Amino acid sequence: MGITFLKGHGTQNDFVLLPDPDATLDLTEERVRALCDRQRGLGADGVLRVVRTAALVTGEADVPGMVGSASDWFMDYRNADGSIAEMCGNGVRVFARYLVDAGLVDASEFVVGSRAGDKPVVVHADGSVTVSMGKAVVTGTSEATLAGSRYAGIAVDVGNPHLVTTLDTDIAELDLTRQPDVDPADFPHGVNVEFLNRLADDVLRMRVFERGVGETRSCGTGTVAAVAADLYAEGEDIGTRIVRIPGGEVTVRIQAGDATLTGPAVILAEGMLNDNWWSDPA
Amino acid sequence: MGITFLKGHGTQNDFVLLPDPDATLDLTEERVRALCDRQRGLGADGVLRVVRTAALVTGEADVPGMVGSASDWFMDYRNADGSIAEMCGNGVRVFARYLVDAGLVDASEFVVGSRAGDKPVVVHADGSVTVSMGKAVVTGTSEATLAGSRYAGIAVDVGNPHLVTTLDTDIAELDLTRQPDVDPADFPHGVNVEFLNRLADDVLRMRVFERGVGETRSCGTGTVAAVAADLYAEGEDIGTRIVRIPGGEVTVRIQAGDATLTGPAVILAEGMLNDNWWSDPA
Repeated sequence: MGITFLKGHGTQNDFVLLPDPDATLDLTEERVRALCDRQRGLGADGVLRVVRTAALVTGEADVPGMVGSASDWFMDYRNADGSIAEMCGNGVRVFARYLVDAGLVDASEFVVGSRAGDKPVVVHADGSVTVSMGKAVVTGTSEATLAGSRYAGIAVDVGNPHLVTTLDTDIAELDLTRQPDVDPADFPHGVNVEFLNRLADDVLRMRVFERGVGETRSCGTGTVAAVAADLYAEGEDIGTRIVRIPGGEVTVRIQAGDATLTGPAVILAEGMLNDNWWSDPA
Repeated sequence: MGITFLKGHGTQNDFVLLPDPDATLDLTEERVRALCDRQRGLGADGVLRVVRTAALVTGEADVPGMVGSASDWFMDYRNADGSIAEMCGNGVRVFARYLVDAGLVDASEFVVGSRAGDKPVVVHADGSVTVSMGKAVVTGTSEATLAGSRYAGIAVDVGNPHLVTTLDTDIAELDLTRQPDVDPADFPHGVNVEFLNRLADDVLRMRVFERGVGETRSCGTGTVAAVAADLYAEGEDIGTRIVRIPGGEVTVRIQAGDATLTGPAVILAEGMLNDNWWSDPA
């Protein structure tokens, strides 16, 4: 029979997609780790299992976010270490793109089910996808210290915590191989730290250090936090910014606190896994 | 039409295979880099283009190692940075395995063409592959310094230079995030440094720091150098050793200086690249 997969990325946050409409795949933690292993597997930041929400209702009734979902398709997202994750702003774009490309959804606007609830998406003709990211709330000010330099920042909650700093000096010069220091009293569970340059009124350049990971090429919630902080600093409530990140470029729009993220979604390959390998990943 | 690919690895040295029997593929440096990019492409240490040697005779008459080749199939190996490489002891195992699995070769013993000349291989029923690695020549002694400790070593040439050190302490404790220091007078072009523990008379455990790369999970010529040095230290000419490396286990046999390397070859997936991505990798 064989296991079908696709490989895709959103601003270079990359995923293996596993179409599994009827929820029959035995996706163990070990298999997720093997799939995501960059030498012995396909390699990815995570796995997106593509399941009919209705199949989960009978098969996995304890999946959070699924009960009462208006979605036809559920994004079962797993981290590369095999653990379960709630949501991923880059992953949901790739997921939505796949549904439309494969003809599984016959609309350009729909909702994707996730453990964090239904996520409205719009799939555009140019291949980009807009996803609703929920509220971005400025919670205060704090600072980050990097290589002895202190940077004043704005704290933003986008479901996860961010500290956004805007620099006058070129962020390309920063050494982000080491974790920025922050005040643990302000961020008891750690924080993602964004460093910005304002290139124009509506164009930001950003680098990000993700807590527990290190510098990444892309962070969906980080770009939303960056724009929320930039609007706050400018005394604005509504606005749109282009954010240039190492993995590409996205557009964030914020209106009454609610944010949408628009960015590319690339699916570059489709194939079949070797049955023997799937049975016993080598 | 679409571009077919396979993904495989030999002791976790991983490759994208591109079947191109008639040498029609326009495999630019940019495409190799995009394919090997671990976030925006498929991700691999290198690309193995699978070409009929006869197709190269007319198409690319300047390919070294091809003129006078007795091979039916030529391994056109490219490094992840897009540059051309001569040979790869792990890659040729995966390449040979593919030829047999795909029915392109109807024999278990044959030669694979490469820029370093024809390489005899034996594909075994259990999936492992034996490849002739040529001469391993002990050239002298030297030493490596790591974190302030000095390790006496045996220098071995396997087409490329190696310095093999055998430790009484557990090699798992070594910090190989930094390059070992060696005497540049002994190794003017740098050197790959192997660290060994003898687990039994015929079983070695090895870690390797590859010049210009860092620690890797596997190094085919490094395992050959390790066994040549171990035999030399034991005063033997002929012998077989199992070498355990982070990426798996291989067997090296040395006889009259000539070495064979036997190890696993895994092909885990096959698929098609998206035509739009191939035209303009995103």
